[in-house]
Amino acid sequence: MKGLSRKTLLVRSLLLLLLLTSTAFAADPLPSWNDTATKKGIVAFVERVTSAGSPDLVPLPERIATFDMDGTLWPEQPFYFPQVFTFDRIKALAPEHPEWRKTQPFKAVLEGDSKTLSASDERALLGLEVAAHAGITTDEYARLVNDWVASAKHPRTGRLYTEMVYQPMLELLAYLRGNGFKTFIVSGGSADFMRVWAEKVLGIPPEQVVGSTLKTKFELRNGLPVIALLPEIEFIDDNVGKPIGIHEHIGRRPVMAFGNSDGDLQMLQWTTAGSGARFGLLVHHTDGEREWAYDRHSPVGRLDKALDAAKTEGWTVVDMKNDWKIVYAFEKK
Amino acid sequence: MKGLSRKTLLVRSLLLLLLLTSTAFAADPLPSWNDTATKKGIVAFVERVTSAGSPDLVPLPERIATFDMDGTLWPEQPFYFPQVFTFDRIKALAPEHPEWRKTQPFKAVLEGDSKTLSASDERALLGLEVAAHAGITTDEYARLVNDWVASAKHPRTGRLYTEMVYQPMLELLAYLRGNGFKTFIVSGGSADFMRVWAEKVLGIPPEQVVGSTLKTKFELRNGLPVIALLPEIEFIDDNVGKPIGIHEHIGRRPVMAFGNSDGDLQMLQWTTAGSGARFGLLVHHTDGEREWAYDRHSPVGRLDKALDAAKTEGWTVVDMKNDWKIVYAFEKK
Repeated sequence: MKGLSRKTLLVRSLLLLLLLTSTAFAADPLPSWNDTATKKGIVAFVERVTSAGSPDLVPLPERIATFDMDGTLWPEQPFYFPQVFTFDRIKALAPEHPEWRKTQPFKAVLEGDSKTLSASDERALLGLEVAAHAGITTDEYARLVNDWVASAKHPRTGRLYTEMVYQPMLELLAYLRGNGFKTFIVSGGSADFMRVWAEKVLGIPPEQVVGSTLKTKFELRNGLPVIALLPEIEFIDDNVGKPIGIHEHIGRRPVMAFGNSDGDLQMLQWTTAGSGARFGLLVHHTDGEREWAYDRHSPVGRLDKALDAAKTEGWTVVDMKNDWKIVYAFEKK
Repeated sequence: MKGLSRKTLLVRSLLLLLLLTSTAFAADPLPSWNDTATKKGIVAFVERVTSAGSPDLVPLPERIATFDMDGTLWPEQPFYFPQVFTFDRIKALAPEHPEWRKTQPFKAVLEGDSKTLSASDERALLGLEVAAHAGITTDEYARLVNDWVASAKHPRTGRLYTEMVYQPMLELLAYLRGNGFKTFIVSGGSADFMRVWAEKVLGIPPEQVVGSTLKTKFELRNGLPVIALLPEIEFIDDNVGKPIGIHEHIGRRPVMAFGNSDGDLQMLQWTTAGSGARFGLLVHHTDGEREWAYDRHSPVGRLDKALDAAKTEGWTVVDMKNDWKIVYAFEKK
């Protein structure tokens, strides 16, 4: 590349892009989806809002699509993956905190007591996050996450967590971006956790990640500015928090929203109540063999009210077992 | 355009882009800037971080530039423009609130008492915002802002506020975007206020606007989901709030940051303390004729500690009088 001017490079890149464009539309953009009504409905909607001359054409800057993370882009069983990172931090820090052996839900983490952990509410589990991370800087936190995603493996598949992103959803993200959509994560998980790897794994840059947060403090440490995590929850990006997070971060209503549980109900309500064409989708975990099968009574990722709302509101429901050819990319190998 | 396929359109657009690119680099990208050291320094930095083969090349996704709004992209005298909108709302709502005639700072707004308003602190003035907007929905708020920017005029220039965006800064925004930067507003003003017009006027979409916010509530009104503004300040995006807002919304450290007052000090510290090449700039209001001249002792937009820091930190200081050929686009007419 050395010696080439910026102009030459740009012209070459554009020529390459031109070539790619000419062939891009020929191939199936969603090869890991079976040819069911679900896939057809997604493609039909995207063509409806992006084809020149369509009465429902959505201008390019307004093409916003929001995706829940846990249970929608990767699994959430037996625990939300960001929580597993926190559990592992709690275990690593436990020698310095003997009191944790006697206090719930710390005790449950240290003893691997899944039952107690599953029964704990979101705020109690966020309390673990507060204890695990408060005081460190955002840079230190990012390093810890980076180390964890590079090595931690899922107990059932034995795979890195980042290998467990759903291949059909990866294709859907790319397909939407190819049609001018900006794709955002809007998740109950920690924003700082997802931002470390979402760009590499999902093609979603940090500025398009909305999630739960701890309060932070800007200060000078040894003369250097840092942002330190404080022991207090700032924002829970779940349930009613999702439309609020969308409004605060994105500032306009999505055209498409994708979720999998009652925690996504309000995001889908907010999205599909907008004027013009809108699209809501729920991933229904129906595949106990390749993934997990659960809905109305699951302690993690409960899909109950939102499943009823899908019927009355006309939202698309993905039947994972029948709609997806493969779940993970590693199945192909 | 009717009848053209998406593919044909895309190919044509790319060909056009290719044509434009071939000539874009020939023209001066900053024609409203005088040919001083300031302009040369900006261009030299941008070439340093964007030229192929440069040891300081910044990868495309990391090219983040953050801009303060009031005093950096448009004036802030005699009051921050978002505050003027709030003052006008307070005046419009005053008949329903006879108590305001006896309470500061409401009384000062209704009596046009600039002296008292100038002496009020930021939190007191945000109290006006709470009173003016609490209870309405975000959609209603956006409509009010839209009406206001379409009609309200600045007392000194007689121009719409949106006509008072600095032409040299508009060119700078476009120049940076042309070099792959994502441009963000990071301002103490209300995010919801700026989002209504920033895309049209500045080319900055709502999702790239970080600002101060009120708390909000998601609820169903007559069966329709709305987001309502609550009578409580959620976040003040000023001073230490700026790096925090940047971390929460953007999730990575900017490469370039642009401000004009002590409220931008921490944003510039946070930006320029990052590893690799970084750039900080302060607009110094030195032009009492075309704009305003003020710095260390101004009640609005004080530039004091940050001006000292610019020397020790090597930040660029724009001398508005000498560095800018014109201030506003309307001067050309």
